[in-house]
Amino acid sequence: MNIFKFLNRRTSAPVARERLQVLLAHERTIVGGQDDLVATLREEILAVIAKHMAVEHDNVQIKMDRGASVSTLEVDIEIPTAKTGMRPAA
Amino acid sequence: MNIFKFLNRRTSAPVARERLQVLLAHERTIVGGQDDLVATLREEILAVIAKHMAVEHDNVQIKMDRGASVSTLEVDIEIPTAKTGMRPAA
Repeated sequence: MNIFKFLNRRTSAPVARERLQVLLAHERTIVGGQDDLVATLREEILAVIAKHMAVEHDNVQIKMDRGASVSTLEVDIEIPTAKTGMRPAA
Repeated sequence: MNIFKFLNRRTSAPVARERLQVLLAHERTIVGGQDDLVATLREEILAVIAKHMAVEHDNVQIKMDRGASVSTLEVDIEIPTAKTGMRPAA
Protein backbone atom coordinates (compact mmCIF):
# COMPACT_ATOMS: atom_id res chain seq x y z
CA MET A 1 0.00 0.00 0.00
CA ASN A 2 1.33 3.39 -0.92
CA ILE A 3 0.89 4.92 2.48
CA PHE A 4 3.47 2.56 3.89
CA LYS A 5 5.92 3.30 1.14
CA PHE A 6 5.47 6.94 2.00
CA LEU A 7 5.99 6.29 5.67
CA ASN A 8 9.03 4.16 5.15
CA ARG A 9 10.90 6.71 3.10
CA ARG A 10 12.68 8.14 6.12
CA THR A 11 12.91 5.18 8.43
CA SER A 12 16.19 3.72 7.35
CA ALA A 13 18.25 4.17 10.52
CA PRO A 14 17.21 1.94 13.42
CA VAL A 15 17.28 4.66 16.07
CA ALA A 16 14.78 5.19 18.87
CA ARG A 17 12.50 8.00 17.94
CA GLU A 18 8.92 8.95 17.76
CA ARG A 19 7.41 10.71 14.81
CA LEU A 20 4.10 12.04 13.70
CA GLN A 21 3.32 12.54 10.06
CA VAL A 22 0.28 14.27 8.70
CA LEU A 23 -0.64 14.34 5.06
CA LEU A 24 -3.51 16.45 3.92
CA ALA A 25 -4.94 16.80 0.45
CA HIS A 26 -7.72 19.03 -0.71
CA GLU A 27 -9.05 18.08 -4.08
CA ARG A 28 -11.26 20.54 -5.93
CA THR A 29 -12.99 20.56 -9.24
CA ILE A 30 -14.76 23.87 -8.94
CA VAL A 31 -12.62 26.93 -9.48
CA GLY A 32 -12.97 29.51 -6.77
CA GLY A 33 -13.48 27.00 -3.99
CA GLN A 34 -11.88 27.25 -0.60
CA ASP A 35 -8.32 27.33 -1.82
CA ASP A 36 -7.00 28.54 1.52
CA LEU A 37 -8.47 25.59 3.32
CA VAL A 38 -5.18 23.73 3.44
CA ALA A 39 -3.34 26.74 4.89
CA THR A 40 -6.07 27.23 7.49
CA LEU A 41 -6.13 23.58 8.44
CA ARG A 42 -2.34 23.54 8.67
CA GLU A 43 -2.39 26.09 11.48
CA GLU A 44 -5.30 24.50 13.28
CA ILE A 45 -4.00 20.96 13.05
CA LEU A 46 -0.58 22.07 14.30
CA ALA A 47 -2.32 23.76 17.24
CA VAL A 48 -4.21 20.55 17.99
CA ILE A 49 -1.00 18.52 17.91
CA ALA A 50 0.84 21.04 20.08
CA LYS A 51 -1.75 20.49 22.80
CA HIS A 52 -0.51 16.93 23.15
CA MET A 53 3.23 17.20 22.77
CA ALA A 54 6.10 19.62 22.77
CA VAL A 55 6.39 20.68 19.15
CA GLU A 56 9.71 22.44 18.66
CA HIS A 57 10.18 24.57 15.59
CA ASP A 58 13.34 22.68 14.64
CA ASN A 59 11.55 19.35 14.77
CA VAL A 60 8.81 20.22 12.34
CA GLN A 61 9.04 20.01 8.57
CA ILE A 62 6.21 21.40 6.53
CA LYS A 63 5.73 21.07 2.83
CA MET A 64 2.80 22.72 1.16
CA ASP A 65 1.86 22.55 -2.48
CA ARG A 66 -1.06 24.53 -3.81
CA GLY A 67 -2.22 23.29 -7.15
CA ALA A 68 -5.17 24.26 -9.31
CA SER A 69 -7.12 21.15 -8.49
CA VAL A 70 -5.26 19.55 -5.58
CA SER A 71 -3.48 21.26 -2.72
CA THR A 72 -1.39 19.14 -0.44
CA LEU A 73 0.22 19.58 2.92
CA GLU A 74 2.82 17.33 4.48
CA VAL A 75 3.78 17.80 8.10
CA ASP A 76 6.53 15.75 9.68
CA ILE A 77 7.10 16.14 13.38
CA GLU A 78 9.90 14.49 15.31
CA ILE A 79 8.69 14.01 18.85
CA PRO A 80 11.24 14.31 21.63
CA THR A 81 11.04 11.13 23.68
CA ALA A 82 11.29 11.75 27.40
CA LYS A 83 12.40 8.20 28.05
CA THR A 84 16.04 7.61 27.25
CA GLY A 85 16.18 3.90 28.11
CA MET A 86 16.20 2.34 24.66
CA ARG A 87 15.15 -1.15 25.62
CA PRO A 88 13.86 -3.48 22.97
CA ALA A 89 10.22 -4.49 23.18
CA ALA A 90 10.76 -7.87 24.92
CA MET B 1 5.89 10.65 -5.62
CA ASN B 2 3.92 8.23 -3.51
CA ILE B 3 1.58 10.80 -2.07
CA PHE B 4 0.16 11.43 -5.50
CA LYS B 5 -0.28 7.78 -6.22
CA PHE B 6 -2.20 7.57 -2.99
CA LEU B 7 -4.31 10.58 -3.85
CA ASN B 8 -5.06 9.38 -7.33
CA ARG B 9 -6.40 6.04 -6.25
CA ARG B 10 -9.98 7.28 -6.15
CA THR B 11 -9.95 9.98 -8.78
CA SER B 12 -10.81 7.97 -11.83
CA ALA B 13 -14.24 9.41 -12.67
CA PRO B 14 -14.19 12.96 -13.99
CA VAL B 15 -17.06 14.24 -11.85
CA ALA B 16 -17.27 17.59 -10.10
CA ARG B 17 -16.57 17.09 -6.45
CA GLU B 18 -14.53 18.35 -3.63
CA ARG B 19 -12.69 16.10 -1.27
CA LEU B 20 -10.45 16.36 1.72
CA GLN B 21 -8.12 13.57 2.64
CA VAL B 22 -6.11 13.36 5.81
CA LEU B 23 -3.49 10.76 6.46
CA LEU B 24 -1.91 10.56 9.85
CA ALA B 25 0.85 8.27 10.99
CA HIS B 26 2.31 7.95 14.44
CA GLU B 27 5.56 6.07 14.46
CA ARG B 28 6.92 4.85 17.78
CA THR B 29 9.97 2.96 18.81
CA ILE B 30 9.44 2.98 22.55
CA VAL B 31 6.82 0.61 23.87
CA GLY B 32 4.29 2.24 26.15
CA GLY B 33 4.28 5.51 24.30
CA GLN B 34 1.16 7.50 23.53
CA ASP B 35 -0.59 4.81 21.59
CA ASP B 36 -3.92 6.56 21.83
CA LEU B 37 -2.55 9.66 20.20
CA VAL B 38 -3.96 8.76 16.80
CA ALA B 39 -7.45 8.20 18.22
CA THR B 40 -7.29 11.48 20.11
CA LEU B 41 -6.05 13.39 17.10
CA ARG B 42 -8.72 11.81 14.94
CA GLU B 43 -11.48 13.38 17.00
CA GLU B 44 -9.76 16.73 17.29
CA ILE B 45 -8.83 16.99 13.64
CA LEU B 46 -12.38 16.07 12.63
CA ALA B 47 -13.65 18.81 14.93
CA VAL B 48 -11.26 21.31 13.32
CA ILE B 49 -12.43 20.31 9.83
CA ALA B 50 -16.10 20.49 10.86
CA LYS B 51 -15.59 24.12 11.80
CA HIS B 52 -14.95 24.92 8.15
CA MET B 53 -17.42 22.77 6.29
CA ALA B 54 -20.50 20.67 6.69
CA VAL B 55 -19.18 17.21 7.46
CA GLU B 56 -21.98 14.71 7.08
CA HIS B 57 -21.59 11.30 8.63
CA ASP B 58 -22.31 9.57 5.33
CA ASN B 59 -19.59 11.52 3.56
CA VAL B 60 -16.78 10.54 5.87
CA GLN B 61 -14.74 7.39 5.64
CA ILE B 62 -12.33 6.63 8.43
CA LYS B 63 -9.76 3.87 8.51
CA MET B 64 -7.61 3.40 11.55
CA ASP B 65 -4.86 0.87 12.02
CA ARG B 66 -3.08 0.57 15.33
CA GLY B 67 0.17 -1.27 15.02
CA ALA B 68 2.93 -1.94 17.53
CA SER B 69 5.25 0.60 16.03
CA VAL B 70 3.13 2.59 13.59
CA SER B 71 -0.49 3.60 13.95
CA THR B 72 -2.19 5.13 10.96
CA LEU B 73 -5.36 7.01 10.36
CA GLU B 74 -6.94 7.73 7.01
CA VAL B 75 -9.84 10.16 6.78
CA ASP B 76 -11.62 10.76 3.50
CA ILE B 77 -14.27 13.45 3.42
CA GLU B 78 -16.47 14.19 0.45
CA ILE B 79 -17.40 17.85 0.65
CA PRO B 80 -20.84 18.84 -0.56
CA THR B 81 -20.38 21.58 -3.13
CA ALA B 82 -22.92 24.34 -2.83
CA LYS B 83 -22.39 25.35 -6.43
CA THR B 84 -24.12 23.10 -8.90
CA GLY B 85 -22.86 24.70 -12.08
CA MET B 86 -20.23 22.22 -13.23
CA ARG B 87 -18.37 24.42 -15.62
CA PRO B 88 -14.89 23.40 -16.65
CA ALA B 89 -12.04 25.68 -15.62
CA ALA B 90 -11.75 27.20 -19.15
